[in-house]
Amino acid sequence: MSVDITPTSSFDQLKRIESSKVFQGVVIAIIILSALTIGAKTYELPPLVEQTLTVLDNAITLFFLVEILFRFAACPVKRRFLMDGWNLFDTLVVIGSLIPLDNSEAVLLGRLLRVFRVLRLVSVVPELRFLINSLLKAIPRMGYIALLMFIIFYIYAAMGSMFFASVDEELWGDVAISMLTLFRVATFEDWTDVMYATMEAYPLSWIYYLTFIFLTAFVFLNMMIGAILEVMSEEQNAKQAQKAHDERDEIARQLQAVQEQLKELTKQVSEKR
Amino acid sequence: MSVDITPTSSFDQLKRIESSKVFQGVVIAIIILSALTIGAKTYELPPLVEQTLTVLDNAITLFFLVEILFRFAACPVKRRFLMDGWNLFDTLVVIGSLIPLDNSEAVLLGRLLRVFRVLRLVSVVPELRFLINSLLKAIPRMGYIALLMFIIFYIYAAMGSMFFASVDEELWGDVAISMLTLFRVATFEDWTDVMYATMEAYPLSWIYYLTFIFLTAFVFLNMMIGAILEVMSEEQNAKQAQKAHDERDEIARQLQAVQEQLKELTKQVSEKR
Amino acid sequence: MSVDITPTSSFDQLKRIESSKVFQGVVIAIIILSALTIGAKTYELPPLVEQTLTVLDNAITLFFLVEILFRFAACPVKRRFLMDGWNLFDTLVVIGSLIPLDNSEAVLLGRLLRVFRVLRLVSVVPELRFLINSLLKAIPRMGYIALLMFIIFYIYAAMGSMFFASVDEELWGDVAISMLTLFRVATFEDWTDVMYATMEAYPLSWIYYLTFIFLTAFVFLNMMIGAILEVMSEEQNAKQAQKAHDERDEIARQLQAVQEQLKELTKQVSEKR
Amino acid sequence: MSVDITPTSSFDQLKRIESSKVFQGVVIAIIILSALTIGAKTYELPPLVEQTLTVLDNAITLFFLVEILFRFAACPVKRRFLMDGWNLFDTLVVIGSLIPLDNSEAVLLGRLLRVFRVLRLVSVVPELRFLINSLLKAIPRMGYIALLMFIIFYIYAAMGSMFFASVDEELWGDVAISMLTLFRVATFEDWTDVMYATMEAYPLSWIYYLTFIFLTAFVFLNMMIGAILEVMSEEQNAKQAQKAHDERDEIARQLQAVQEQLKELTKQVSEKR
Repeated sequence: MSVDITPTSSFDQLKRIESSKVFQGVVIAIIILSALTIGAKTYELPPLVEQTLTVLDNAITLFFLVEILFRFAACPVKRRFLMDGWNLFDTLVVIGSLIPLDNSEAVLLGRLLRVFRVLRLVSVVPELRFLINSLLKAIPRMGYIALLMFIIFYIYAAMGSMFFASVDEELWGDVAISMLTLFRVATFEDWTDVMYATMEAYPLSWIYYLTFIFLTAFVFLNMMIGAILEVMSEEQNAKQAQKAHDERDEIARQLQAVQEQLKELTKQVSEKR
Repeated sequence: MSVDITPTSSFDQLKRIESSKVFQGVVIAIIILSALTIGAKTYELPPLVEQTLTVLDNAITLFFLVEILFRFAACPVKRRFLMDGWNLFDTLVVIGSLIPLDNSEAVLLGRLLRVFRVLRLVSVVPELRFLINSLLKAIPRMGYIALLMFIIFYIYAAMGSMFFASVDEELWGDVAISMLTLFRVATFEDWTDVMYATMEAYPLSWIYYLTFIFLTAFVFLNMMIGAILEVMSEEQNAKQAQKAHDERDEIARQLQAVQEQLKELTKQVSEKR
Repeated sequence: MSVDITPTSSFDQLKRIESSKVFQGVVIAIIILSALTIGAKTYELPPLVEQTLTVLDNAITLFFLVEILFRFAACPVKRRFLMDGWNLFDTLVVIGSLIPLDNSEAVLLGRLLRVFRVLRLVSVVPELRFLINSLLKAIPRMGYIALLMFIIFYIYAAMGSMFFASVDEELWGDVAISMLTLFRVATFEDWTDVMYATMEAYPLSWIYYLTFIFLTAFVFLNMMIGAILEVMSEEQNAKQAQKAHDERDEIARQLQAVQEQLKELTKQVSEKR
Repeated sequence: MSVDITPTSSFDQLKRIESSKVFQGVVIAIIILSALTIGAKTYELPPLVEQTLTVLDNAITLFFLVEILFRFAACPVKRRFLMDGWNLFDTLVVIGSLIPLDNSEAVLLGRLLRVFRVLRLVSVVPELRFLINSLLKAIPRMGYIALLMFIIFYIYAAMGSMFFASVDEELWGDVAISMLTLFRVATFEDWTDVMYATMEAYPLSWIYYLTFIFLTAFVFLNMMIGAILEVMSEEQNAKQAQKAHDERDEIARQLQAVQEQLKELTKQVSEKR
């Protein structure tokens, strides 16, 4: 029986360590340290510091590897470990960091993958995880609006490259470049320069820009209002409505009691008759 | 009797085909293909690809023609076919595509009309159709605000071209150009350049720009808030309010039952007397 | 008695004419004509058209004068005519238009005052009048926020002209110019150019710009949210809440009836005893 | 006994003076005067005015010192005087103003500290104090969103300085400069210039900018919606909900009375049996 208990208790111990405040704190500290080394490498550094950073980087990589294995060991059902999106994300980031930085060819890729270690902060801090989850929930309701926006951009881009390609090849050369130019117009970034250039060839082209700006702004505004409303109808007042419902329920129950009392009374009266 | 049944069943078959998922999927696929050919034509292409695209374009035009005729045939009441806005739109787009692209004069018009075939995606995908309908519903409530905005723009443009026409003919030449310049100021696009230029002649002209920006921003902000509120008062909580109303109704009905029981009881008691 | 009736009936007739659709339509048409002549004058015109416009302008001025006198005559209580803000506004605009345009010195002023005749569209169309009234109502609730914004601008402007006046006299020369520059920064208009210039002398001056942008954006955002909330808490759901209140009232009344019935019954029973 | 009363009554008198409208008005007037002298000093002034301003400045400093001592004297519990944030703030500002302006080295610091005297307007006007308090309350709910934003900026800045440092050292030199450049991109300020420059070296770098803009805009939008909702769920409808709750409570109480009456009646009937 002691054999049976030992692994369980050691497993419990693993779980306890994993969910302890100290362990969480250490992991967060290491992630921040990792972020700082990534930032430090973007500066010109003396060779000694550079070497120290490389050693530190390897130590961090090792720590993350040990931590993920530790969390895997602390997971009660091993098969489900990678089913959880956050675990999968952490594992991929850690594996990505294993690419050595010496190899001059993969050095940029290796450094790029190390950048994503900062994102582990999101997967470790519960409040940020909750925030991301709620942001992800907001994506589908914007799906069809995004499609509509894309259609508007595509049609205007096709028209733009048809008419204005001769005016400025760099801004309206093909449909892809035109979409980028239109995105620029939608952010109001030097859009009048673009307009004035085409207005010299096509004096009426301001109609093109104004309808485009109004259309995108109008759709965007309605999207925003729609998003606000959708979230609100889900969340807001739900608690108050529930409380009101409960109170009305209580009243209905009291009324039923009154009716039963009355029925009883009527029976008594009629029996006495 | 068989004569009577045959056309009906073939008509039912048409309807069944038209509303089938496969048919819808094929139409959407052809529209996307049409969008891609329009986009592809904005690139420099080898002659062979160009010719293939022309053939493809003709095939798509033919397909759309057949499809609209098919949908017309599947329509139970022929006279109402064009009453539906979406059908009318589809028919116009298809007829517009029939303009041949060989004629060098109408080539731009023909290509322009082909661009609108992408919009057929909106008329075919029900979710986008619903989206557009709800956007169209939002237009009237913005009508008077738009008129007010136009009046503000017009007055400022008239003043602008009165005073600043001598400063910069290209920006303030007449009331129409001035309105375009003011729209540029309203989007904050290089508006300080415009202001600094006029401030050299009229040092106090910053008042003109600041009041204009505050007025338009203030009206716009209130318009947005108004739009949010109007939609909300219509849609939001309507379901919850209905539920609360129903529950209160139930309580009132129970109370009526109690009163009736009491009346009955009183009658019994008084009869016994 | 006939003497007594005649003026009254002619007065009623005036009132009837004034509030008739045709009269309103004519006034609106004349205002739009007036707006068009103002716009037309900003273009280069042949002398003949110029002369026609001047005649037209005089005719419009005369019409407006007659119209305001007519409305004064139709006003039941003469003393209150100018108490109404819209009437006062109309009268001032009409009197302002009486300045002759021939006098070369007052010509700009006269033309400027004529521009405000377009604003009469607001005082004539009831929907626009309602809109303006509701916008005016929104001003007080923004008062203290505007004061806070002004304090933020003033402090940053004082600091800016203290430190940066030596860098660019034209942007930071004194506290007034600095406030204009800060307004430019707040609209994100080429603000990085301003920042990069001062960062050469004061490398840490990005702190100045970023804190300023965050402060104004934060205060503005909260102002917007506050405005939305304030309007909502006033208007929204008021109707639904009233309905719910009425229904609960009905229930309470029914309950009272039940209690009375019970009291009656108890009395009967106890009497029988 | 007269000895005992005198200090109390003089203390009451102090309190009465401190909270009197006249005293408040004088303080506000002096603060505005102080703000004006600060503004005036940013202009080129003749020596005489300059000297007058210095004298005025000293007088204001003295007034503020006397005022803070007066308010300290009027405070019932001396130890708690500095516990109140606004008092602490006022005291610090007044002490800061005591730095003499003659010393040429501390002159900028002294002038800077005098600027903050304008902020005393906030601590003196109750409406502004209330506004600031409600703004401060809004900060924590934006904390984690700000952290998330910072992580996004940091990751993109690290990537940016990795790839684009060779393109433009001044914009992408290290991670700190890159974050400033990204903030510029987030405000849409000449962001296309930044993008076009890097697109020459990395043609696909538009993906970097577009994903960044979409991410920050998306997170910001959701933050705004979240902030609106959070405030609403707290404040809005709370009064109406309370009223509805009270009314339902009243109904429940009436029902209880009915039940008691019924119980009494049943007892009577059964006793009679």
